[in-house]
Amino acid sequence: MPDIGKLLWPRSVAVIGASSDTSGLRGRVLQIMKGHPFAGPIYPVSRSASEVQGLQAFRSVDELPAPADLAVLIIPAKFVPQELERCGKAGIRAATILSSGFAETADGSGLALQDEVRAIARHHDMAVTGPNAEGFANTAAALCPTFSPVMEAVATPLVPPDGRARGQVAVISQSGGMGFALFDHGRPKDLSFRYVVTTGNEACLEAFDLVDYMLEEGKTDVFLLLLEDVKTRATFERVAASALRAGKPLIVGKLGQSEAGSRAVRSHTGALAGVHADYRALFERYGVIESRDPGEMVDIAAAFLAFGARLPAGKRVGICTSSGGGGAWLADACTAAGLDVPELDAATRGSIDVHLPAYGTSQNPVDVTAQAVHAVGYAPFARMVAGSPAVDGVIVIVTGRNPRLLLRDREALKTLARESAKPIFMWSYTRPAEACVALMSEAGYPLFTSMVNCARAMRALADYRCARERFMRG
Amino acid sequence: MPDIGKLLWPRSVAVIGASSDTSGLRGRVLQIMKGHPFAGPIYPVSRSASEVQGLQAFRSVDELPAPADLAVLIIPAKFVPQELERCGKAGIRAATILSSGFAETADGSGLALQDEVRAIARHHDMAVTGPNAEGFANTAAALCPTFSPVMEAVATPLVPPDGRARGQVAVISQSGGMGFALFDHGRPKDLSFRYVVTTGNEACLEAFDLVDYMLEEGKTDVFLLLLEDVKTRATFERVAASALRAGKPLIVGKLGQSEAGSRAVRSHTGALAGVHADYRALFERYGVIESRDPGEMVDIAAAFLAFGARLPAGKRVGICTSSGGGGAWLADACTAAGLDVPELDAATRGSIDVHLPAYGTSQNPVDVTAQAVHAVGYAPFARMVAGSPAVDGVIVIVTGRNPRLLLRDREALKTLARESAKPIFMWSYTRPAEACVALMSEAGYPLFTSMVNCARAMRALADYRCARERFMRG
Repeated sequence: MPDIGKLLWPRSVAVIGASSDTSGLRGRVLQIMKGHPFAGPIYPVSRSASEVQGLQAFRSVDELPAPADLAVLIIPAKFVPQELERCGKAGIRAATILSSGFAETADGSGLALQDEVRAIARHHDMAVTGPNAEGFANTAAALCPTFSPVMEAVATPLVPPDGRARGQVAVISQSGGMGFALFDHGRPKDLSFRYVVTTGNEACLEAFDLVDYMLEEGKTDVFLLLLEDVKTRATFERVAASALRAGKPLIVGKLGQSEAGSRAVRSHTGALAGVHADYRALFERYGVIESRDPGEMVDIAAAFLAFGARLPAGKRVGICTSSGGGGAWLADACTAAGLDVPELDAATRGSIDVHLPAYGTSQNPVDVTAQAVHAVGYAPFARMVAGSPAVDGVIVIVTGRNPRLLLRDREALKTLARESAKPIFMWSYTRPAEACVALMSEAGYPLFTSMVNCARAMRALADYRCARERFMRG
Repeated sequence: MPDIGKLLWPRSVAVIGASSDTSGLRGRVLQIMKGHPFAGPIYPVSRSASEVQGLQAFRSVDELPAPADLAVLIIPAKFVPQELERCGKAGIRAATILSSGFAETADGSGLALQDEVRAIARHHDMAVTGPNAEGFANTAAALCPTFSPVMEAVATPLVPPDGRARGQVAVISQSGGMGFALFDHGRPKDLSFRYVVTTGNEACLEAFDLVDYMLEEGKTDVFLLLLEDVKTRATFERVAASALRAGKPLIVGKLGQSEAGSRAVRSHTGALAGVHADYRALFERYGVIESRDPGEMVDIAAAFLAFGARLPAGKRVGICTSSGGGGAWLADACTAAGLDVPELDAATRGSIDVHLPAYGTSQNPVDVTAQAVHAVGYAPFARMVAGSPAVDGVIVIVTGRNPRLLLRDREALKTLARESAKPIFMWSYTRPAEACVALMSEAGYPLFTSMVNCARAMRALADYRCARERFMRG
């Protein structure tokens, strides 16, 4: 196995095909890279320009002032093999190939090129992603060799401020657009993404080679994977087993489940989508969490980051709400997600009832009413529900639109998140104000804005615990 | 039937129980009302204060300088009947009762009070919502008698600027929190809400009485309804039939489908949730569109507003994408939603193929590749796909993160939206920039940020056409 560290943590990068025309993809890669404070040198390689976007350019990777660790290739497919060979000879041990026109071509014209790429990478022991990839991002290194608009330098830093993120997420995706989309959906929810790596056709490195590296590195807590196929089943089984043993969940979107989807992945990365039932059986064996929805994947990741170390012991949920209708609707959603919403035990009910007006109820959903939540706050009720032996986890329905009640409750909410042995989720049925997002992140709660995802995430946590315990028993 | 116009379009409003303490619900109602430029007088009625939040207060509705059209009651339940009677005698013909403690009480202590309310309203022929409601909003009148934090005066106007909204939506909901949440989710998507009316226990007016009024009024194009029960089946059948005949879709969330949900609606509004299969059969007969997800309901409404007059003739979808992975994933989502994603006809494929590199495909999903979309733009490809006799509607996958390509295409996109005989949806797989939201709204496309909702909305349009044609044939 080549050194994936050279790929993800290079000290210097050559961009082969770099251009000054930032309206095209070739120019955008360099522009995006320059927008982030990567510490090492970036060498544009261009046959036609001596300077590209203000950087000195070089005619060939042979002529760099010092050898680069990583080459980014964005040149026509037919030139890729010879350039990759040149990289190998120049001592470059990693490459990401953004060019398209390989195994995914409809007429098969690029198949031979892809075989050449694979052979060259093997010969020089190079760590290569692609071809037909969209590059990657390493946020800690501020390195973004990609043309994804999501990684364009903007006001939002690549990772949340200190204290607002729990753990780190890695995205590994055959699809560039969809991979970076997961980052784009998760970042505003204060998820800290360590890596986004797109693998395209996977001529050389496969998704699970990267998972393997990241598990070894030990800094990634949750994996979001978008797969069009699993090329080497043995690698999947070995790595998925390691992940499950380590308690690092793999949340997978498997593309190409339908006939049309299968046609699409064939033309997208040359992948054979396979029979989905086979994948499902394989995934279930290793506790892999499947999802069909990008937003849901991100929400499940947020749930694991917050409460992955305190998984629910079963599927019984307590709902605590100041909106009676919200409680009813969420109870339906929990039931649809395969969770139970049982009535609470008498002792817990008694402790709650003393605070409720006649039109509230402690049955579960616990409708504390707007009046009682004004008087008592959210945290004390959530704590009482979490204390019930009848439930394995709690969902609190809040409105984060005007967060004054939540802010008043701030310290109690923080203490509860720290002390609770059961997962406690927050669903804001209105769009949360920024102060609410910050409070929840700092306190360590996942904040859901989708009711359905909230219910499904609780189910995913319960399923994962169950799958892991079964696996560990052997 | 009392005059619902007096309720929704009063010339003057009395707020019974108004308070200067804006940290409590009684103070918030008046504060929120004052935050919007309602043209008529607002009369606080208070036993203890001569002035409330800067307005002259009155000891009783008997003592108002002129009779009010509408009374808002937020006082303890036990005082509600006598105050409502006083309103009736003073000539007030409409009321919204925000107080709780009626049929929803666990011990039934409020049942008799609710019967009294009903009798008084009937006696004086008053249009009454509630009790246990959260008030309503009439955006055109800038009237928001509610304590919902969603209606607090903020920078965002109640409705989108001219030219950005197609048609108008009404929300009618037994649940206050969930009803206003639909507004909160839809407003940033440039949906124009004409009314949000919460009905609570529905002692007097029921949801379908309000739908009936709004159908008569003829200004509402799409209805979002959250029901815990249907109290009078005959009203439902008559009104749902009118709505279907008029082509005004009813998008319904039916709360209380599960055992726990059913328990919750009983304690929330005293509703008997009933057997869901019975509701489903009734809904299907009248083309009512059911949804279990607030975000999905809003997205389906947006789809109807844009293309309700050009419903798809069948379930066949063309997908046009610059992200190959996005095309595959959406094809899976469409299939899961019960849509077909067939291969396109040869003539259409030929016209597309001339623009594609070897690694693109016109099969469907049509993967035009990032390169071709840079060269040609989104609109020409979307037009070619829409022109195929093999499809009934089109979904275009875009990235609205950096909208430069879409903005370049602006005029062509507008023309296409105007001219297309088939619905064309846009799914942005990244969070759309404000400029992208504005462009799509102005051009008249629904812009989806959820892939799954986008697919389901197309299915809802197809189903609605089918149900309506069946119904019209009799």
